[in-house]
Amino acid sequence: MSEFFNVLPPDEARELLFAQITPLSAESINVEESLGRVTAVSIHAPHPLPTFRRSTMDGYAVKAASTYGASGSLPAFLHVVGEVPMGRAADLAISTGEAAIVHTGGMIPQTADAVVQVEHTQVIGEQVANDFEIEVMKAVAVGQNLLQVGEDVAETAVILPAGHLLRPQDIGGLLAMGIMEISVTRRPRITILATGDEVVPPNEQAGAGQIRDINSYTVAGLVRQAGGVPNVGGIVPDHFEALQEAAKTAIADADMLVMSAGSSVSVRDMTVEVIDQLGEPGVLLHGVATRPGKPTIVGAIDGKPVIGLPGNPVSAMVQFDMFGVPAIYRLQGVQEMPRRGRVWAQLSNNIASESGREDYIPAKLSDGEKGLAATAVFGKSNLIYTLVNADGLIKVPLNTGGLLAGEWVEVRLF
Amino acid sequence: MSEFFNVLPPDEARELLFAQITPLSAESINVEESLGRVTAVSIHAPHPLPTFRRSTMDGYAVKAASTYGASGSLPAFLHVVGEVPMGRAADLAISTGEAAIVHTGGMIPQTADAVVQVEHTQVIGEQVANDFEIEVMKAVAVGQNLLQVGEDVAETAVILPAGHLLRPQDIGGLLAMGIMEISVTRRPRITILATGDEVVPPNEQAGAGQIRDINSYTVAGLVRQAGGVPNVGGIVPDHFEALQEAAKTAIADADMLVMSAGSSVSVRDMTVEVIDQLGEPGVLLHGVATRPGKPTIVGAIDGKPVIGLPGNPVSAMVQFDMFGVPAIYRLQGVQEMPRRGRVWAQLSNNIASESGREDYIPAKLSDGEKGLAATAVFGKSNLIYTLVNADGLIKVPLNTGGLLAGEWVEVRLF
Repeated sequence: MSEFFNVLPPDEARELLFAQITPLSAESINVEESLGRVTAVSIHAPHPLPTFRRSTMDGYAVKAASTYGASGSLPAFLHVVGEVPMGRAADLAISTGEAAIVHTGGMIPQTADAVVQVEHTQVIGEQVANDFEIEVMKAVAVGQNLLQVGEDVAETAVILPAGHLLRPQDIGGLLAMGIMEISVTRRPRITILATGDEVVPPNEQAGAGQIRDINSYTVAGLVRQAGGVPNVGGIVPDHFEALQEAAKTAIADADMLVMSAGSSVSVRDMTVEVIDQLGEPGVLLHGVATRPGKPTIVGAIDGKPVIGLPGNPVSAMVQFDMFGVPAIYRLQGVQEMPRRGRVWAQLSNNIASESGREDYIPAKLSDGEKGLAATAVFGKSNLIYTLVNADGLIKVPLNTGGLLAGEWVEVRLF
Repeated sequence: MSEFFNVLPPDEARELLFAQITPLSAESINVEESLGRVTAVSIHAPHPLPTFRRSTMDGYAVKAASTYGASGSLPAFLHVVGEVPMGRAADLAISTGEAAIVHTGGMIPQTADAVVQVEHTQVIGEQVANDFEIEVMKAVAVGQNLLQVGEDVAETAVILPAGHLLRPQDIGGLLAMGIMEISVTRRPRITILATGDEVVPPNEQAGAGQIRDINSYTVAGLVRQAGGVPNVGGIVPDHFEALQEAAKTAIADADMLVMSAGSSVSVRDMTVEVIDQLGEPGVLLHGVATRPGKPTIVGAIDGKPVIGLPGNPVSAMVQFDMFGVPAIYRLQGVQEMPRRGRVWAQLSNNIASESGREDYIPAKLSDGEKGLAATAVFGKSNLIYTLVNADGLIKVPLNTGGLLAGEWVEVRLF
């Protein structure tokens, strides 16, 4: 019960949560299906890449010395002794004064040490099969226009570290090595509970005084984007025993629990009490120095993050993005948050703020003179369409009295 | 056969391709499963949001006039006549001098026009059930601390336009309206063929002169990220009839065809010929003013984009990102490319370039003084690990002789 009722800056608050999290267990999957997953261990090259010397041009494999001093006015004359077919071993032997036809990507004969681009050559007389003469108008250096063995990757090199979020090119890099299966961390399962006597499921008619549950579904979307598997756990009434029972069941089956903690003070206090009674350490902090979203509850039970979100939709999304999303990445073993989705833009209008608080203001983006331009849109944080109509959120750092038009600001795309 | 053999700037080349594309047909799906899909038609609000006046604070619903002039030294005295329970209609009547307990999100009685925050009040004497007196220390204006009917969304307003890529908050916005199903464009099916006598599947041993197919899988990853469904169609030998047959079958079943067009001039010429014989208009252009990737082939057959990629992995990815990815978005009806993945960063080193060509240089990103810092990493475009070890690509615009350290540049995260 290490409960702190002080309001912490977001970075300190996140560190308290991160200290509770260790990456989930690993599982083996096909590399072809690994987009967006995270490596559980570092991966080493089983062999060098490329495994043979390859031409980077269409042209002729030669001994570079055969071309020294060659120019347009004084070409070198070489005898073509054969062709290296694509996909085959280059079993030709090249002597000084000789050349072999090679194609881009083709293997270089062992006795050759450079490639002359076809554009810098001229066939003399008739090209009879693979037995003719060429003029070379430009000298090449040893190693020119070819890839050396291991030039892409040296043998046993670490090709991907542990905790790496897999992108298309990483999949290509693994398959280039013939690595067909890898060990990745399990996808975190996140259960989301909504609380509130006024909340009804979205497919039901909302009567007078009632609203439809939307936070469960916006949070589920953020969970999916971060690589987690959301489980919308339904709506729990504002009663201690009901919430306690639902939370206990949810945390047993999930890797993380999110509670839409309601908007009123009494419901938030109840959520704090429920989290504290779930296990150790319980609530880590209650209150973060941000707007929107100050009354966020952050806790952990046996390494499983528990987050109590404010009830209004803008606060809920901003706060889940601030704590829930990084927690999902940490559960997968990703230390540094992906940069995708964070852009810099030049501010078009002034934003007032209070020092000692991190503010997030919805913004519309447009193409500016020197990059992106961001226009702050001021709206109540109770309005979901404030976010629907925005492209992202401008971050007003902790210790500023606001931002002025013309400043460069960080915008989280939403 | 409107075949142009001139090398076009990327923007002009894209416009030629886009002119051939119309969005795919629509299908109806559950809103809960619509993350990353694209609206096929614009969506109107079936009712205003909120549907009733809601409190944004814990406190008391009042007639604002009852509080005029109230201050700490001269409070207004009000009689509390009841409580509005959460999730219920507010059927209390409030007269001047009266108040009703309301919770954040609760309904406001019809005769009230403002809410006094609980922090600005004081209970006088004992709080007997719902019949007691309070002091109000701060005046409120009409409409203060409450949301009006339709303040979030007015009835019949367009809540999402057609061609909108659905984000978590859009799903929330739709569900708030009770909209459970929406019409989205079908996911584009993209068939990817690899060509080359030297190419073997990644699960096979690559012998002397052979390499494993990786472009099919890196392109498949980019297709998935853009919302398409990739179909890796296998490896076709470098023979005209084989490629023609494979392309004909592929285009019949798919919405778009990608051919890894090989690296040598002869294979590229063959690909151009195959695309031209597939149907109308055939090849639109052969050659784009970019590096890497100049020899890209762009075409269309009956509204289906066909893209012939250079064989080397960096060129293939850069060019697919330049033509294939926007084409997939266009097929879904998205006009403007999502900004996610494009960041601005301050360059750490100089980059030389040729005017009249758009260059893409792999870059490492780090946190700089005024935002992101990008360091160009120079490597051969034949090396897949150039991209594995990079965070993105720096764009060197068409008509510059290069970029200098300190300049702000656009980086495409990869």
